[in-house]
Amino acid sequence: MSKVEHQDATVLSDDELRTLDAHWRAANYLAAAQIYLMANPLLTEPLRPEHIKPRLLGHWGTSPGLNLVHTHLNRVIKARGLDALCVWGPGHGGPSVLANSWLEGSYSETYPDVTRDVAGMERLFRQFSFPGGVPSHVAPETPGSIHEGGELGYSLAHAYGAAFDNPGLLVACVIGDGEAETGPLATAWHSNKFLDPVQDGAVLPILHLNGYKIANPTVLARVPEAELDALLRGYGHEPIHVTGDDPAQVHRAMAAALDDALDRIALAQRTAREDGGTRRVHWPMIVLRTPKGWTGPAEVDGEPVAGTWRAHQVPLPGVRENPAHLRQLEEWLRSYRPEELFDQDGRPVADVLACVPDGSRRLGATAHANGGLLVRDLPIADLDGFAVPVEKPGTTLHEPTRVLGDLLEQIMRDTRSRRDFRLVGPDETASNRLQAVYGASGKAWQAERLPVDEHLDRHGRVLEILSEHTCQGWLEGYLLTGRHGLFSCYEAFVHIVDSMVNQHIKWLRTARRLPWRAPVASLNYLLTSHVWRQDHNGFSHQDPGFVDHVLNKSPEVVRVYLPPDANTLLSVADHVLRSRDYVNVVVAGKQPCFDWLSMDQARAHCARGAGIWDWAGTENGGEPDVVLACAGDVPTQEILAAAQLLRRHLPRLAVRVVNVVDMTRLLPREEHPHGMTDFEYDGLFTADKPVIFAYHGYPWLVHRLAYRRAGHRHLHVRGYKEAGTTTTPFDMVVRNDLDRYRLVMDVIDRVPGLAVRAAALRQLMADARTRHHAWIRAHGTDLPEVADWSWNA
Amino acid sequence: MSKVEHQDATVLSDDELRTLDAHWRAANYLAAAQIYLMANPLLTEPLRPEHIKPRLLGHWGTSPGLNLVHTHLNRVIKARGLDALCVWGPGHGGPSVLANSWLEGSYSETYPDVTRDVAGMERLFRQFSFPGGVPSHVAPETPGSIHEGGELGYSLAHAYGAAFDNPGLLVACVIGDGEAETGPLATAWHSNKFLDPVQDGAVLPILHLNGYKIANPTVLARVPEAELDALLRGYGHEPIHVTGDDPAQVHRAMAAALDDALDRIALAQRTAREDGGTRRVHWPMIVLRTPKGWTGPAEVDGEPVAGTWRAHQVPLPGVRENPAHLRQLEEWLRSYRPEELFDQDGRPVADVLACVPDGSRRLGATAHANGGLLVRDLPIADLDGFAVPVEKPGTTLHEPTRVLGDLLEQIMRDTRSRRDFRLVGPDETASNRLQAVYGASGKAWQAERLPVDEHLDRHGRVLEILSEHTCQGWLEGYLLTGRHGLFSCYEAFVHIVDSMVNQHIKWLRTARRLPWRAPVASLNYLLTSHVWRQDHNGFSHQDPGFVDHVLNKSPEVVRVYLPPDANTLLSVADHVLRSRDYVNVVVAGKQPCFDWLSMDQARAHCARGAGIWDWAGTENGGEPDVVLACAGDVPTQEILAAAQLLRRHLPRLAVRVVNVVDMTRLLPREEHPHGMTDFEYDGLFTADKPVIFAYHGYPWLVHRLAYRRAGHRHLHVRGYKEAGTTTTPFDMVVRNDLDRYRLVMDVIDRVPGLAVRAAALRQLMADARTRHHAWIRAHGTDLPEVADWSWNA
Repeated sequence: MSKVEHQDATVLSDDELRTLDAHWRAANYLAAAQIYLMANPLLTEPLRPEHIKPRLLGHWGTSPGLNLVHTHLNRVIKARGLDALCVWGPGHGGPSVLANSWLEGSYSETYPDVTRDVAGMERLFRQFSFPGGVPSHVAPETPGSIHEGGELGYSLAHAYGAAFDNPGLLVACVIGDGEAETGPLATAWHSNKFLDPVQDGAVLPILHLNGYKIANPTVLARVPEAELDALLRGYGHEPIHVTGDDPAQVHRAMAAALDDALDRIALAQRTAREDGGTRRVHWPMIVLRTPKGWTGPAEVDGEPVAGTWRAHQVPLPGVRENPAHLRQLEEWLRSYRPEELFDQDGRPVADVLACVPDGSRRLGATAHANGGLLVRDLPIADLDGFAVPVEKPGTTLHEPTRVLGDLLEQIMRDTRSRRDFRLVGPDETASNRLQAVYGASGKAWQAERLPVDEHLDRHGRVLEILSEHTCQGWLEGYLLTGRHGLFSCYEAFVHIVDSMVNQHIKWLRTARRLPWRAPVASLNYLLTSHVWRQDHNGFSHQDPGFVDHVLNKSPEVVRVYLPPDANTLLSVADHVLRSRDYVNVVVAGKQPCFDWLSMDQARAHCARGAGIWDWAGTENGGEPDVVLACAGDVPTQEILAAAQLLRRHLPRLAVRVVNVVDMTRLLPREEHPHGMTDFEYDGLFTADKPVIFAYHGYPWLVHRLAYRRAGHRHLHVRGYKEAGTTTTPFDMVVRNDLDRYRLVMDVIDRVPGLAVRAAALRQLMADARTRHHAWIRAHGTDLPEVADWSWNA
Repeated sequence: MSKVEHQDATVLSDDELRTLDAHWRAANYLAAAQIYLMANPLLTEPLRPEHIKPRLLGHWGTSPGLNLVHTHLNRVIKARGLDALCVWGPGHGGPSVLANSWLEGSYSETYPDVTRDVAGMERLFRQFSFPGGVPSHVAPETPGSIHEGGELGYSLAHAYGAAFDNPGLLVACVIGDGEAETGPLATAWHSNKFLDPVQDGAVLPILHLNGYKIANPTVLARVPEAELDALLRGYGHEPIHVTGDDPAQVHRAMAAALDDALDRIALAQRTAREDGGTRRVHWPMIVLRTPKGWTGPAEVDGEPVAGTWRAHQVPLPGVRENPAHLRQLEEWLRSYRPEELFDQDGRPVADVLACVPDGSRRLGATAHANGGLLVRDLPIADLDGFAVPVEKPGTTLHEPTRVLGDLLEQIMRDTRSRRDFRLVGPDETASNRLQAVYGASGKAWQAERLPVDEHLDRHGRVLEILSEHTCQGWLEGYLLTGRHGLFSCYEAFVHIVDSMVNQHIKWLRTARRLPWRAPVASLNYLLTSHVWRQDHNGFSHQDPGFVDHVLNKSPEVVRVYLPPDANTLLSVADHVLRSRDYVNVVVAGKQPCFDWLSMDQARAHCARGAGIWDWAGTENGGEPDVVLACAGDVPTQEILAAAQLLRRHLPRLAVRVVNVVDMTRLLPREEHPHGMTDFEYDGLFTADKPVIFAYHGYPWLVHRLAYRRAGHRHLHVRGYKEAGTTTTPFDMVVRNDLDRYRLVMDVIDRVPGLAVRAAALRQLMADARTRHHAWIRAHGTDLPEVADWSWNA
């Protein structure tokens, strides 16, 4: 490890080198001490077992490298007056980022009880990975962070999300060589083909090769440097390599590399902004190769530690019990010469702080990492201008997502100068019928264009890449830095980001409890091309389970909406786009769907989240005999068709039709802020009458939400039960027993005391299902009576 | 598109060129016709609307490229006598792969009603994307396939999985340029650092750049060729480029490229096998750049189609209604000159079949794509040799996964010559305490090695890469080609592969219904480092929801086990490793855990899946007053601690302790093959007594499984409710109300008619919780009474 490039381009003065090294040593000291100490923070007395925490938790290995990056970012931010944000990819770098925030003062400003003195230093150490304290990873609790370092792989996509539409911002992104092996990270490199040098900020990837993961070498550290260089050039970058293990040499090389990279970025942006950005930029990046656990114990118990995977977590595990380890820890900590770095009161000396920028330029104090401070209300036009007219329910058809597309186009138009709204999707915007937005903004694209292309736009705000991971990561980064957006996705394939949304929900839940974090715009999903209308793509494209996944998570954060038609979709979209700090899942169809509610009715219905559709039922005051409930566009249509059959054939049966838009309404009030009281629930569903519930997804979800209700034992739910294939739309519902005929049979089977007429109707329904099976085999299409059905009550 | 490389290396004779082109044209004809025709398959009469299917579904765009690859693979397989398999990444390439299978005869052998004549051709066309027919994607129904082309991104990992431990096999893998944008695919390229040229087969990636996705250009097709070349070299490959749109030129270039690639592969393998494989191989690959929808309509309604995204699906959509489209379709189909390709009976002529290999060398007939034909029972040693001795329950501690590690080592040892077992994991094998396996096999690694490394092995069968996607993809490919394996993963992060396991479950569910597909070994997960013992890593590492996700899917396929100790884990592991065609999820701890059952008891308990632990309860014949139920290691410990408290303080309360290992036992018999009858369920849990159920994961899962039971209204479940943080193990259960004290309080709150003594005990319990809170704040450790607890009844 002796090769060093770029050491000559920038010449650090001895003074600069000394102060940078002082800052780095201070950060290293603080990072190591957080893992071990709960007392004697300045080592003013010899280290004794009682100074050591009872449980030693944390990750040393990555910390010195992160500290180096932080130190050098400080230098260039200050020297160049940059507006910068850093995304710290190496997951467990908590000790480092906390150390740096404390050094620069942003930590004490955020948490006034952790003062920048010896008392605060002791608190900083003690709270780390301590019950009730702070996590060992970079997390919402960490000032200056928009990226949780727990589950790996998303740093680079987050960085690009932060840079979009932030032309003045530099987003540095440290990528660990472990994280670099993940799929989401591996494809996020291609984000550079979507970054506009004119309207967006810059991303500076810093690939940190410390060579090891928990227990293995990393792939990228073990291929020849020329091969790695080719890979990164193939990703579209111009890599600058910094390699070494001698601190002074590496300081010089890193300073030179950063200056070089920032000069290139500045030139690229200036050129593009002068000429309008007509050429793709090959952005610089840095490859930083330093030893894992650098400056830590070289050997422990005869085994090499620094520079190996053994430095990953706690290099000296037995400190409290093993005097030799304790002595070694003390030597290690004293090797940073804390007495030179902190004054008697524990305050960092001037040399240590020489590189630190001021105020909001500090990485721990930038408002971009607390996006709620920057977010503005989205301009959303009056929905009446987009609503479809509904004179009579169930007689006209619209494609709900296409109607929504017009609203999104208007939002795109109204944010043209603000540039704080993005639509993301995996190559499905048009497939999902949202292409109207192209009228206001094209698709971001910096790579080659051909005459045959349509809607590609160097400055576009529609983002399409065939990677749900990248879409999700971009949007998260964009939202957490104070902007707005919508992710449209095929319903089945949104499971690809299950784990990512999980982490985002955890982030929001934690952030909501931190008074200093201001609310950010919600993460909004539009799931379409859904299970019931993937009849042509078949079984692999059919999965409504994302709702189940999300509803397992923190109820403060999650919301699920299933608007049954175009106007309710508009109302729901309006609501979710205005909301803050939620993850909203909206499931809606793109195929022609009956219009049930006028815009005013839709607004009122969505505000309630669930309600009786009087016009569809046959109640005459009093309690109904049966409740037909539905959630989702296709189930709603089938329930109404069933209601129509019942009205025609059993006119004296008192049927109530209930439509549910907001699934969390079904939960008890104590379990979710939107939950109904039992009084409300019984008022809608009754406490003792049969409820036939046609639900969009897995039927047991409704049971899981409603199992505490008095009427639960009378609840019978139909939904998707993995009976999928390539077939017709109506055959999909028949195969899953969600069809109108089966629903009528369910009513007859469950309402007590029905007369002979009901038995005849039941037979009629069974016959209709038989007829369906025969017809579809012969014709490959749906029964004409189904294909031509409309509401006619 | 005129650049062609490698056209000179291999000189195809005119005769070869003519027959290859005939095969290609035949496949193109059959692919296009599947999308459109339901009659008049040979175009023996002019095309009329009634020959056209009522719904036009399918994907033309990728088909001609896939047909080209198939044709040329046929040639080299035949010429070189190769044992080959092809993974068809471009998802919607169904028409192509079906066409080729029909041509070579494997389709008719698999589906005898689809004969290789005009009647069979008509069936082939009609069934495609038709209700009750076959999917439009490559799917389990497709002969020769191990890869569902629905959700994109997994082809390359599947290909490597198939190649591992198959030294005689060539696995070609066609990667679409859309798919190439996904994260899983982007990192799967690095699989080449894990492929052993000695013990494994070869993978030949064929990156097919047809330039467009559904509605957008692809990234890789729009970067300069030199940049793409650098990327692929950076991935460790030697790319061979084939580019063109003139069929004859491309035939020549493709033949040359394939010969070149296969020569290089043969040389690399021969060299490695002679010298023992001491150097890393830079494997060749092919970049094939041909137009999307090549040979299809150039223009439709004045818009360019061939060579654009408009060719993605159905290039001529209005054929039934629009006479001009119908005419254009007829011209298109006749352009392949079907009359030269098929005889009067619809049989392919000799020229068409000239390139097709024989018997099981045909891509549609290889046994490697029907792995159940090849799979052998795994040798699993007698568990008694690995069991921990249990004289008395709850007095000794073992780390369950470490005990399992010994068994896995033995399996590794016993498969040393067969090489049909692999352990995969994202850099967590040692972290998950399974490192004993290294005694029998090191970790596969072909990249650079340093002296400090441990257990890296060019021929190892433990696979570790920091990509859950790659782990999952490798294992799927390995299993579907007839081998065995286990995926060990942190519980929280297995959500990363939610969508992949989804697709694998769908694959198995479909495959199980196909009589010609023989059962393969199950996909087994060992989820450890679980929610209750991620106290140190904190909230981001806590998520038990994978079980919920999996239990939504086809019950024929999914199984979930929560063994409570080391011996039960052994028993469960033995069972799942012997099983076929399932996805088994096993959740078990790696931290020291009480041993409850001897090996014999464990076997009996696991065979039942759920049972009463007599020794832990206080029943005296008769019905219990309360049932304490548990599933999972930590909940089991808390339930037993609660049982001990009740026994001590309320000795006359009749407590029954029930432990559940197999979660699907809770389901009704009609819903899952393992489900209990109501009689069985009531026998365990009673129909009317309070049940306090301590469950490992989200509590509502138990309700979702048991809501139909008579006793459901008396069921009270405790589990993880997202109250996570960085803390101690016991604090985790306290925060989620799963602790022993809370469980005792739950009993007291729910058993009617308890005396004053119970009220006093309740207060004692509440006090203990208060004491816990104070202690942990002061000491950062758990209460001594909890830390030192053991079963002492």
